[in-house]
Amino acid sequence: MAKALNIDPSTVSRALNDKPGVRPELRRKIKEKAEELGYIVSFQARSLKTKKTMTIGIILSDIKNPFFLDFLDGVEKTLFPRKYKILLATSNENIQKEKTYLTWFMEHGVQGIIIAPTCTKSGKNNLSFFRQIKKNGIPIVFYDRKLESGSLEFDSVTINNYEAIVSAVKYLVVEMGHKKLGLCLTEPLVYTLRERFRGFIDGCKMFNAKYDKKWIITLTKDEKENMKKLKVLFKESGPTAVITTNHLITQYILKATREFNKKIPKDISLIAFDDNIENQIYDPPLTTIKQPVLSLGKNAATIIIGRLDGEDYPPQNIVLNSELVIRNSVKKLKNKK
Amino acid sequence: MAKALNIDPSTVSRALNDKPGVRPELRRKIKEKAEELGYIVSFQARSLKTKKTMTIGIILSDIKNPFFLDFLDGVEKTLFPRKYKILLATSNENIQKEKTYLTWFMEHGVQGIIIAPTCTKSGKNNLSFFRQIKKNGIPIVFYDRKLESGSLEFDSVTINNYEAIVSAVKYLVVEMGHKKLGLCLTEPLVYTLRERFRGFIDGCKMFNAKYDKKWIITLTKDEKENMKKLKVLFKESGPTAVITTNHLITQYILKATREFNKKIPKDISLIAFDDNIENQIYDPPLTTIKQPVLSLGKNAATIIIGRLDGEDYPPQNIVLNSELVIRNSVKKLKNKK
Repeated sequence: MAKALNIDPSTVSRALNDKPGVRPELRRKIKEKAEELGYIVSFQARSLKTKKTMTIGIILSDIKNPFFLDFLDGVEKTLFPRKYKILLATSNENIQKEKTYLTWFMEHGVQGIIIAPTCTKSGKNNLSFFRQIKKNGIPIVFYDRKLESGSLEFDSVTINNYEAIVSAVKYLVVEMGHKKLGLCLTEPLVYTLRERFRGFIDGCKMFNAKYDKKWIITLTKDEKENMKKLKVLFKESGPTAVITTNHLITQYILKATREFNKKIPKDISLIAFDDNIENQIYDPPLTTIKQPVLSLGKNAATIIIGRLDGEDYPPQNIVLNSELVIRNSVKKLKNKK
Repeated sequence: MAKALNIDPSTVSRALNDKPGVRPELRRKIKEKAEELGYIVSFQARSLKTKKTMTIGIILSDIKNPFFLDFLDGVEKTLFPRKYKILLATSNENIQKEKTYLTWFMEHGVQGIIIAPTCTKSGKNNLSFFRQIKKNGIPIVFYDRKLESGSLEFDSVTINNYEAIVSAVKYLVVEMGHKKLGLCLTEPLVYTLRERFRGFIDGCKMFNAKYDKKWIITLTKDEKENMKKLKVLFKESGPTAVITTNHLITQYILKATREFNKKIPKDISLIAFDDNIENQIYDPPLTTIKQPVLSLGKNAATIIIGRLDGEDYPPQNIVLNSELVIRNSVKKLKNKK
């Protein structure tokens, strides 16, 4: 390269690495020649010397949930200016797969891990493995969920899941006159969903609403089975309003209303979770618990960068506030006895 | 570790690396102890020796487009069993950012790159840089789009964009009696959109439909400006049907119908692009050009793996077929003169 241009090799190096001491015109010429020759800085070697891969491992729990678009957007926006790259994985809510990816991440030399930790139906999780990783000097941030038993050991960013649902219940009962409420969840009951469940039960108690065990519906991946389960929502004796706990569940309920030829909010009122753009566009537009998902991503990435910059404060458990966006999917009921 | 258990170090190594010659019971014991001690295989060292990072760089063009959920799902499903990891980036349709990430990828030592290449408004792209990367022995697969001038040099997986729109035009004109058609695009006019545009123009010519320049609307990031532009769709003298070219554009049009208090298909008929679950749930459900997005991801990843396995055939340009899913957003018009 230096030979081709008949220049001193150190000048070439200074020009390509944007270091001072090279005239702009010459720098441009050298860079053009470098492109022409297919010259690319070998970082592989550089990485070996500094032992820094400049990668952060991100584990999603379900790659199909549009929640992660905004989340990844927030993470990327924060990492990019600091030159950190995203190593992306998905656990598909499977703790074995999660562990496999965590192992690969460690073997790869990620400098930090941002993860929505999953668990099995019976509540098993990878906490002991997270502890090992931390012992190995790799910071971990839990987002969306945390592992209760390890929450004081790890950084986390979650939303106020419990309060979000309590507020939704309050709105349904106190403002809109509903007395009979349903809730829709999915398996496995990860931290986030358990908190939302707890908010529902406590909210019903606080505001004297009635719920039936049958009205708390846990959906699985079996679409037919789900439709059967959702039928209870549309019975004469069923709930007058239902709260969903993520975007995909909302779609299921909307599909079910179509299947059973029912209308929202005439036949049942609905509060959705996760404010995707579609929620404003549906007819009627959906009253929705809006999570600050972009902010969730930004906060998680900011904590990791802080740890990598050497910030040494105790583990932080950041809780972001959600918001109840009122639209037209909840019917106002008269106060009947 | 070997000391703690009082065993030969080579036995420990064989046990942890799943090599034969260790009794199952002892292997289990060694693995447990390893977990307890926070022992993690150092891949960093291993990577240096074999010079394989087992990562594939993936570049999205716009992280906010739900298109990428299915795409990434397809890629991950294909790479995971082969132990390849995803290094994720987004260009945000900015060729400079794309180049930055490509450089980082190369420096990091990715073994392959899967990318939806972007371009500027004036058509500038990173083709020469892609050529350099290829010269450096790193296989590249273009997905969703390709760079026309480089299409014989690189593998690509796209859908039949041109034919998809021609078929939609044919359906609107021949089957549903529409004569005046509109089209909605976004900037920058990447390959995919140019093909869809070409399909629209040729389709209108083939089937004798009328279009006006004003009915071909290119949306930007300026939401207010977009609403103004979309107004033309609802004029008395405007088109009777409009075709969108991605999911986000569909949302814009649905928002506009609400804003201008118009109904689909009464006031205007609509054919959407990208069959997100919401399209079935909207009222009315949207007639949609469905891309095989999961398959796009799987095919792109399969090609990369083939190249890494040493498959040495000439560059492949795979074209997948889309499908027109008929629902209820197109009104049947009587044949008027």
